[in-house]
Amino acid sequence: MNKLLILSRFEADYRRLVEAANLPGLKIASGPDKDCSIILGEPKLIRDALPNLPSVQWVQSIFAGVEQLLDPSLQRDYVLTNARGVFGALMSEYVFGYLLAHERHIFERSKAQQENRWETKVTGQLRGKTIGLLGVGSIGAHLAGTAKHFQMNTRGYTRDSKSCPDVDQYFHNDQLLEFAKGLDYLVSVLPNTKETNHIVDMALLNALPPHAVFINVGRGSAVDEAALAEALNAGKIALAILDVFEQEPLPKDHFFWHTKNLWMTFHTSAPSIPEDIMRLFAENYDLFLRGKPLKCQVDFRRGY
Amino acid sequence: MNKLLILSRFEADYRRLVEAANLPGLKIASGPDKDCSIILGEPKLIRDALPNLPSVQWVQSIFAGVEQLLDPSLQRDYVLTNARGVFGALMSEYVFGYLLAHERHIFERSKAQQENRWETKVTGQLRGKTIGLLGVGSIGAHLAGTAKHFQMNTRGYTRDSKSCPDVDQYFHNDQLLEFAKGLDYLVSVLPNTKETNHIVDMALLNALPPHAVFINVGRGSAVDEAALAEALNAGKIALAILDVFEQEPLPKDHFFWHTKNLWMTFHTSAPSIPEDIMRLFAENYDLFLRGKPLKCQVDFRRGY
Repeated sequence: MNKLLILSRFEADYRRLVEAANLPGLKIASGPDKDCSIILGEPKLIRDALPNLPSVQWVQSIFAGVEQLLDPSLQRDYVLTNARGVFGALMSEYVFGYLLAHERHIFERSKAQQENRWETKVTGQLRGKTIGLLGVGSIGAHLAGTAKHFQMNTRGYTRDSKSCPDVDQYFHNDQLLEFAKGLDYLVSVLPNTKETNHIVDMALLNALPPHAVFINVGRGSAVDEAALAEALNAGKIALAILDVFEQEPLPKDHFFWHTKNLWMTFHTSAPSIPEDIMRLFAENYDLFLRGKPLKCQVDFRRGY
Repeated sequence: MNKLLILSRFEADYRRLVEAANLPGLKIASGPDKDCSIILGEPKLIRDALPNLPSVQWVQSIFAGVEQLLDPSLQRDYVLTNARGVFGALMSEYVFGYLLAHERHIFERSKAQQENRWETKVTGQLRGKTIGLLGVGSIGAHLAGTAKHFQMNTRGYTRDSKSCPDVDQYFHNDQLLEFAKGLDYLVSVLPNTKETNHIVDMALLNALPPHAVFINVGRGSAVDEAALAEALNAGKIALAILDVFEQEPLPKDHFFWHTKNLWMTFHTSAPSIPEDIMRLFAENYDLFLRGKPLKCQVDFRRGY
């Protein structure tokens, strides 16, 4: 018998789904318990509970980002799996929805309507544009697929992988500025690691054309926020669309609240849909029972 | 030698493109001329010029809609081809851009930002939703393909065709209300014909669920505008997004300027991109020279 602890603000939803799945040999604990061998939940809540759960063998995060569990001072004697492969579709809806809102001048058209103006200015399109993906994991690959559907050109910047067939051209390591040159859109899906810290700095922003749009749906730590605000206020790039920030919620006195050409969306780009997470958990539980390697394992040292 | 007359507000662009294409045996006329055998241009300008152009054999419209050339009192002793197959990609960008703006609450998020509010309300998604296409020609088929990319369910309502593999389920003739039942989104791409006149009436709107969104990117004549305004003001459907109207520009005193839950975009959804039209024209000119049937021929009686 395996005892499962659920640690989430949406515990009731997950409890209902786990019960409905009727997984063999799995019992849901009513609370933290020394016998719990599996945890399903949010990294921050798991970090706080872990010290009192000596029997844990496997943790399934319901989020992609698991920074809170990676501190070297924390125990690492369990298998950590995160939510991957479930956010790509939602992220595509977010990224291309916002790019289209920009290209189609959705806000300006709305203003024209409010002012009773028949406003026929020709707007832009995605087709033929070039998108650069900072990071091409499962989310980046999904974005590349949607970009191809919209007949766009695609570039990817990665440490060394180049496995996504929807990326036209790959760049690595010291090719970052070459990667940025001439991009219409730059999208970061990078996780929070030492290597990605402030990778979007003034040098990278200066390498973009003035009409470029930057989107961050990865982690706020990838961006030098002061440099981005400076670039936006000075019109060095046309627009930034930020879902993530170095500190969340964004402090009330942060300069981003007064930065020009900036749209913010408050870490809502790809919510964890319990049904999606449940499918992944059930698949991993089956592998766990059979003693096979789990899907979406996190490498504690690499950080993702 | 074939003499080409260009009749468009963007004549200079088309002239440049035709000259660059260097098509064999084709000369561009400097103005309306009795010897002109081919016209490339906008239906309204062509209608006015036709009576003085006795040698015309072929007219290539740069628009999809050619109503102005279909009046039975006008001459029909030439081959009329319209622009088709070139608007699908642009229409997809428009339709899915606006659907995503709705699902993602783009306007509400923007308002939260203006009010310094960290607003994390979970928004909607396209995935799993059902879209119904009124009309499945080349544009409808493109929309169905994009819907499938976003993992949606697709229905099509057509006179009799059912050739698009991206449409899950087809409906015809008296199945209109059955087609509408349970749709999340209804999109009209219908041309202006007798059969399509006011097809979107109160009965159809009443058949939609209250959360439904209606988009019209076809022709304004397909919609009973008074019924739509009534449905929107009463909250019978959630939102309409209209690019086309019975009278354009929309009269200054039209009730749509004051209708609730209505977004309007002033016939801008799919502009004719001269480069796209030029590719079609060059292809058709080659067929014309070889005496073969042209692409995108309009049936004068059917109306499209």
